[in-house]
Amino acid sequence: MAQAVARLAGINVGAPARSVPSGDFGLIGLAVMGQNLILNAADHGFTVVAYNRTVAKVDRFLENEAKGKSIVGAHSIEEFVSKLKKPRRMMLLVMAGKPVDDFIEALLPYVEAGDIIIDGGNSHFPDSNRRSKYLAAKGIRFVGTGVSGGEEGARYGPSLMPGGNEEAWPYIKDVFQSIAAKSDGEPCCDWVGDEGAGHYVKMVHNGIEYGDMQLITEAYDILKRGLGLTPNEIGEVFAKWNTGVLDSFLIEITRDILKYNDDDGTALVEKILDKAGQKGTGKWTAINALDLGMPVTLIGEAVFSRCLSAIKDERIRASAVLRGPTPKFEGDKQTFIDNLEQALYASKIISYAQGFMLIQDAAKEYGWKLNKPSIALMWRGGCIIRSVFLKDITSAYRKNPNLENLLFDDFFNKAIHKAQDGWRDIVSKGALWGIPTPAFSTALSFYDGYRTRDLPANLLQAQRDYFGAHTFRIKPEFASANFPDGKDIHVNWTGRGGNVSASTYIA
Amino acid sequence: MAQAVARLAGINVGAPARSVPSGDFGLIGLAVMGQNLILNAADHGFTVVAYNRTVAKVDRFLENEAKGKSIVGAHSIEEFVSKLKKPRRMMLLVMAGKPVDDFIEALLPYVEAGDIIIDGGNSHFPDSNRRSKYLAAKGIRFVGTGVSGGEEGARYGPSLMPGGNEEAWPYIKDVFQSIAAKSDGEPCCDWVGDEGAGHYVKMVHNGIEYGDMQLITEAYDILKRGLGLTPNEIGEVFAKWNTGVLDSFLIEITRDILKYNDDDGTALVEKILDKAGQKGTGKWTAINALDLGMPVTLIGEAVFSRCLSAIKDERIRASAVLRGPTPKFEGDKQTFIDNLEQALYASKIISYAQGFMLIQDAAKEYGWKLNKPSIALMWRGGCIIRSVFLKDITSAYRKNPNLENLLFDDFFNKAIHKAQDGWRDIVSKGALWGIPTPAFSTALSFYDGYRTRDLPANLLQAQRDYFGAHTFRIKPEFASANFPDGKDIHVNWTGRGGNVSASTYIA
Repeated sequence: MAQAVARLAGINVGAPARSVPSGDFGLIGLAVMGQNLILNAADHGFTVVAYNRTVAKVDRFLENEAKGKSIVGAHSIEEFVSKLKKPRRMMLLVMAGKPVDDFIEALLPYVEAGDIIIDGGNSHFPDSNRRSKYLAAKGIRFVGTGVSGGEEGARYGPSLMPGGNEEAWPYIKDVFQSIAAKSDGEPCCDWVGDEGAGHYVKMVHNGIEYGDMQLITEAYDILKRGLGLTPNEIGEVFAKWNTGVLDSFLIEITRDILKYNDDDGTALVEKILDKAGQKGTGKWTAINALDLGMPVTLIGEAVFSRCLSAIKDERIRASAVLRGPTPKFEGDKQTFIDNLEQALYASKIISYAQGFMLIQDAAKEYGWKLNKPSIALMWRGGCIIRSVFLKDITSAYRKNPNLENLLFDDFFNKAIHKAQDGWRDIVSKGALWGIPTPAFSTALSFYDGYRTRDLPANLLQAQRDYFGAHTFRIKPEFASANFPDGKDIHVNWTGRGGNVSASTYIA
Repeated sequence: MAQAVARLAGINVGAPARSVPSGDFGLIGLAVMGQNLILNAADHGFTVVAYNRTVAKVDRFLENEAKGKSIVGAHSIEEFVSKLKKPRRMMLLVMAGKPVDDFIEALLPYVEAGDIIIDGGNSHFPDSNRRSKYLAAKGIRFVGTGVSGGEEGARYGPSLMPGGNEEAWPYIKDVFQSIAAKSDGEPCCDWVGDEGAGHYVKMVHNGIEYGDMQLITEAYDILKRGLGLTPNEIGEVFAKWNTGVLDSFLIEITRDILKYNDDDGTALVEKILDKAGQKGTGKWTAINALDLGMPVTLIGEAVFSRCLSAIKDERIRASAVLRGPTPKFEGDKQTFIDNLEQALYASKIISYAQGFMLIQDAAKEYGWKLNKPSIALMWRGGCIIRSVFLKDITSAYRKNPNLENLLFDDFFNKAIHKAQDGWRDIVSKGALWGIPTPAFSTALSFYDGYRTRDLPANLLQAQRDYFGAHTFRIKPEFASANFPDGKDIHVNWTGRGGNVSASTYIA
C-alpha cells in the first residue's frame, strides 16, 4: 500500500516496482531526538526518509507530527535505502554501542561506494575511530557527529560537531548547517576533523559542561553559606551576572531556578536532594585527560565533586563527627560578590584553556587534522554551555589558529590578570570559612603552576632517583661536566658530604 | 651434568631418569628483582629453583650471586617444574602483560591440579582477575602479588601483597612472610583478598605514593618561595618533621636530598629539571577512582601535577606573560612552619582516607572478600610509603575492621581537628601568594565537602532537570504530596510564579 502510494506520487508511474528516490536525507531511530531532527530538516526544505526498527512508530510519526511535511516513511532498511538520492546520506540516532554497529551491518548490503553513514548518537570516540576505518575500507564514508542541545535543540537548532571521513562533508554540509543553531548568523556547525574527532569534541564539551555547572554551584554555596543570602537574593546576583562577562545559558537558568518557588513560597531548589547524577561523559573526559597526560584538573574535580555528593548517607554521618569553622563575613558585600564573579570568570577561563589543551593534544596523539577556530563557534549556540564567552574564544582562535594556549591571547590574558585578585580572595576565604571550593581552587593552582617556570617537581625527580634509581635530568642552565644537559643522571644520594662526583654515574 | 648432580644428591640414586624434587619455591625471571627475591628466600632456608628464558643467565647467576646457597638452576620449563615439591609454588617475575600469559601457557603442560602460579610483576589488576579465573578452571591456584620496595626490598625484605585463590595461601604463607619486611616484629605481608585484590592494593599503594610525594613538594615550594628558606634550612625542617607525626621514609630521604650538595657547595636538588616522570600506576588509580565514582581527589591532583610539570617548555613561555602576586611573609616563621606540618599531616590523612574508601568500594564492586586491617600493615615496612602513620591506621582498622572511614576513628578524628587551623592558614596563604597547592587544597575541599550535610549539588540537579529533564529527588525532610520521597521528579522550570503543582509531573 505504502509502495503503491509512493509509486503514484513518483514520476515513473507505471514503471515496474521502482520509484525515483526523493529523499535528501535519511534518519533511523524515531525517539524524540530523531523525530525532532527530522522535523527540523523538513522545515528547512529537505525531504527526509524516516525509519525505525519498530515500524509501527514510523506510521504513528507519519500520521501525527510528520503530517503534511516533506517526510517519507520506510518500513524496511531496504526501502529506507532505496528512497534516498545518491550519494545517500543516512543518519543513525540510536543508542550508542552495539545498536550502532548492528544498524551499520544492516545497511551494508544495500548501500554503495560513496554513500554516507552518520552516527549522531552519544558514541565514545574510539568507537567512531574504529567505524570510520572499517567503513572507509568498504568505500563507505562514515561521519560521527556530536549533537548537543537536547530535544529542544534537535527541533529548532542543535549544535552539530561532525567528524570522520572528510569526503562526506560537501554532501552533508548543506543539511547540517541548515538545521544547526545559529550564532550571530553563523551556523553552530562546521567540520571538526578526522575519524572520531567529532565525538571527541562533543565529549570534551560535556566535560566542560560539568566544569561550568560545578563552578556555579560553588558560587551559590559561597553566597548562601558565606554571605548568608536567600535563594531569591542569590537569584538576583545571577541575574546581574547574566548581563556581564558570565552571560550564558547556565547562568540564566540558575537565575530562574533560584527564583522558582514551591507552593509554600520558598525556593524549590533548597528542597532538592543534593546527590548529583552523571551520564559518564564527564568521566570519559577526565579519564582521557589522564591517559593523554594533560592536566585537565577542573573537569576532574567537577566529576569527583559529583561522586562526593552521591555518598550523601556517609556525609550525613560525617557531618555529625567532623567539625569546621563558622563563616564570618566582614567587609563590603558587593565587593565580595564582584570578587566572586571574577573567581567564577577566571576559573571558567582556566577550564576552557584546559579543554582546548586536551583537544590540541588529542589531535596530535591521534593524528587528526582539526578545525580549531570552529570548535568554539560550534559551542556558541544550541548547547548547554552556550555563552558570550565562547564568542571571545572564537575570536581568539580566528585571530591566531595556532594559538598555543587561550591564556596567551590578549583578551584572556588581560581578563585573567584583572580577575586574579578577586579570585584569590574567594579561594582563601573558602579555605578559612570551611566552604569547599574544589573547582575554584584547582583552577587557581593550575594558573599558578602553569605560570611557574620552576615547579618543585625537581624534588620529586630527586626522590624517584633516590629510591628507585629512576634518574633525572639537569636544568640546562646548570649543566656541567658532571651533569651534562639532556642526559639521564643517577646519583648515590646516601653518600653524604660535598663531593658528589665520586658517587655519580651517568646511567 | 646438572641432572646427574641432582640425582647424586637425591635419595633415589640409581632410579631411572627422575630425581626427587628438592625445590621449596621456584622463580622465573632473573632480572635484579627476581635474583634478589631468590637470594632472600635462600637466606631464609628455602631451596629455590631458578629459571630464566635466556638460560645463560641461570648459569651466570648460579656461578656468582647464588654460589654456595640453597639455589638450584633449571634450563627448561620442564626441568623447572620437575625440581619442585608438590604442590609446586612457582613465581613469575617477568614483565607485566603478554610475557606473564606466555609463561603461564608454557607452564601449563607440566603442572598439575593444586599447583600454585604466582605473578609478582607489576600487573594491572584486571589481568589478575582474568588469570585467577582462567587458572581456577584448570585446577591451578593463581596468586597475583604486589611486590614493593624495589631492589633493596626484594633482597632484604619487600612488602608483599598477595591476592587471588585463597587456597594457595597456606602453602605460600611461610615463604612469603619469611622473606617479607618486618614492622615491630610483624611481617609486612598477609593475604589481601580474592582475584586481583593483591595487585589492586599495590596499585592504590602506588597512587598514595604519588600523593605523598606531591604533598612534600608543595611543602618544599612554600618553604622556598613563601618563606624564602635555603635548601639546607628546608632540610632542617624536614629533619625535625621526621621526628614527629610525619616520621616516614619519604620525609627522611627529602631531608637527605635537600642537604646533598654539588661540588660547588650548593644543593644539587635545585639544579634538577622540574619535569616529573611517571610509570602510570598513579594514573591507573585515578582512572579506577573515576570508574568506580569514588572521589580520590588527592591522587588525581598528584597525577595531574606531574603532567603539568612535564610541559616545562610551555610553562617557560607562560611564565613570561602570566603574572601573579609576590609572596610577602609576615608573622612568626616557626608558627607558620608548624602550620605547614599540620597541613601536610591533615592532607595525608585525607589521602589515605580516600585510598581506603577506594579499596573498600572496589571490594564491594568486584565482589572481593578483603583483609582490611592487614593492608596498612603491609605498607608499614619494605615500601616507599612506610611510616609511623601507617601504624596508627593499622590500629584503627584492628580496633574496628568495619570502620566506615578513617576520619571516623578517634585518633584520626582528633588529629584532623587539631590540624585544621594550620591547614586552612596554609591553603589560604598559598592562594594569596600565588604558590600552587593543588594537593593541600583538594584535600581541604574534600574534608569540607565530606563533612557537609547539604552540598550545593541540589542546584546541579535542578540544572540537569531544567535543561535535560533528568529529574531529581526531594530531600526526605521536605517530602510532600507534590514531591514524594524517593521518586524521580521533573518540574517545568520555565513556568514562573509560585504555583508549581500545575506544572509538575512525576516521571
